[in-house]
Amino acid sequence: MRTRSVLTLALAVVITASLITACAASDPSVDPLPSWNDGEVKQAIIHFVTSVTTKDGPDFVPPEQRIATFDNDGTLWCEQPVIQGMFLMYKLERMVKEDPSLRAKQPFKAALEHDQEYLQAEGMPAMLELFAATHAGMSQEEFEAEVEEFIATGTHPTLDVSLGQVVYKPMIELLAYLRANDFKTYICSGGGVDFMRVVSTTLYGIPPEQVMGSSMKKELRHVDGRWVLARTGELDFYNDKEMKPVNIDLHTGTRPLFAMGNVRSGGDIGMLSYSQGRDGPSLQLLVNHDDEEREFAYAEPDNASLNAAKASGWLVVSMQNDWESIFPLR
Amino acid sequence: MRTRSVLTLALAVVITASLITACAASDPSVDPLPSWNDGEVKQAIIHFVTSVTTKDGPDFVPPEQRIATFDNDGTLWCEQPVIQGMFLMYKLERMVKEDPSLRAKQPFKAALEHDQEYLQAEGMPAMLELFAATHAGMSQEEFEAEVEEFIATGTHPTLDVSLGQVVYKPMIELLAYLRANDFKTYICSGGGVDFMRVVSTTLYGIPPEQVMGSSMKKELRHVDGRWVLARTGELDFYNDKEMKPVNIDLHTGTRPLFAMGNVRSGGDIGMLSYSQGRDGPSLQLLVNHDDEEREFAYAEPDNASLNAAKASGWLVVSMQNDWESIFPLR
Repeated sequence: MRTRSVLTLALAVVITASLITACAASDPSVDPLPSWNDGEVKQAIIHFVTSVTTKDGPDFVPPEQRIATFDNDGTLWCEQPVIQGMFLMYKLERMVKEDPSLRAKQPFKAALEHDQEYLQAEGMPAMLELFAATHAGMSQEEFEAEVEEFIATGTHPTLDVSLGQVVYKPMIELLAYLRANDFKTYICSGGGVDFMRVVSTTLYGIPPEQVMGSSMKKELRHVDGRWVLARTGELDFYNDKEMKPVNIDLHTGTRPLFAMGNVRSGGDIGMLSYSQGRDGPSLQLLVNHDDEEREFAYAEPDNASLNAAKASGWLVVSMQNDWESIFPLR
Repeated sequence: MRTRSVLTLALAVVITASLITACAASDPSVDPLPSWNDGEVKQAIIHFVTSVTTKDGPDFVPPEQRIATFDNDGTLWCEQPVIQGMFLMYKLERMVKEDPSLRAKQPFKAALEHDQEYLQAEGMPAMLELFAATHAGMSQEEFEAEVEEFIATGTHPTLDVSLGQVVYKPMIELLAYLRANDFKTYICSGGGVDFMRVVSTTLYGIPPEQVMGSSMKKELRHVDGRWVLARTGELDFYNDKEMKPVNIDLHTGTRPLFAMGNVRSGGDIGMLSYSQGRDGPSLQLLVNHDDEEREFAYAEPDNASLNAAKASGWLVVSMQNDWESIFPLR
């Protein structure tokens, strides 16, 4: 029963945000972004959305071009730690219960013992082996059930909220506000596409077909009299940095009118640059994690994202200053 | 001016079909598929759509799962000859005007002289070289302008209609009927995704983000102070046979509730099988080109598609018997 109530609550947040923004869309006295503090960033968002949706205005953009793309980890929900990494560990611990010999076998041993040194030395091949072991070898339906169970029953290690509640409330409002103005909202994340699709509708109101992410190769196989797509365990597409624009083009054929990512690894610079190269108006935003008290404070070693934002005129969202609240239940 | 009027006419057909079906959706006495002859196939389509959209009925399927996928060449428009092949030749002839030395150079020489023997002997590498030469090396915007011009000014070599009119009228009605019943209609074709996206909204009412096809590799490059996606000329994804389900999963994450292809090469068997593996109801259709008088009559050498249809219970659409008319203007 807990499963259901936590996800129902998440859905309630999405619906409430949608209702608020639906009212706001028809009544300018209703604030469409109540969890955003008044200031330059909030004003710029509302000004932009108003200008591209004002018919006969100089910046009007027809609805079919209103594509908005969002990174997920660190932009729509918390990434300390990365939730899909938590899922990997959750699966690994279940696998070890079935087969204790994994404790002695690399790279499982290193992952279970949090041996960062080993994992960093082994790099991508070790990570891919961990992903293949925990994310492949089952049907799509089994995988979805596991992710749902994990999200619904897990809690964040330090924030004292369930995993269904580590979404950012201001972002839920922003997504609903954009959709109320006929934007199509997409996720474009380095996270696994199948992992995110299990929860994207419930957490964000974003349907599976509007989720782009990293993916494993799949093959059509005939299993027990039925054609199924089996995950091979081999990486197909790592959706980060310069590959994000490639994936957005593949999925939508359209440059984003609105793109938003976050500071951490420079992973969203490509997506925001690509959006900005659009003919006509466009808006780019970058979330800066500067709120140690309510969430976390972390920066990039080389400061590349903030430097790019400064050079390109992207809006930087300070979680500390721009967000009146961060999580739906805190 | 001709460009505009032909495409406007195509759009008018799409809009008219949408209006008819919108009326039909609310008034059961209006026929949603007037270009389909009464018979088993038409009845089965209407019965299926009614049953999956009847709330509280035993076969009700919620709107978010109403994904419908269509092959393009031979299913939505004429494929004798393949229109994108005509575009390739159109581009090649323009290139030869600029650089006559191409006439002596393979594989251009063979293509220009319709030397099927050479092209078949050289196979895929020669085809890819022709595609790279005619479909790469320009910006997205230039490519789109070329395709628009080609479709708007070209005529079919034998059918005496413009290329904007080689769409199948019964299929335009079917797409509109499904959309009026909250289906999302997708193209899933072996044709080039960027080629189809230029015309999919005008011809079929299908937006670019609902078009899947074959694609070339692209790279983010900084050109003249702007970030652009450049086509490398290298094949990324050939969207045929078993790869169609893989691409549908990548784009939508959902098994199609409705899937439709055609007899010619067995290219749609994978997509229809994948749709049929859906939990719960689903419908699969296969267009059979058996109308030599009004279009063309052609079959598969090994009859694989019709055999699969018989073994699996897919509906076979006879163009001769099931379609009251074929093209919008004939």
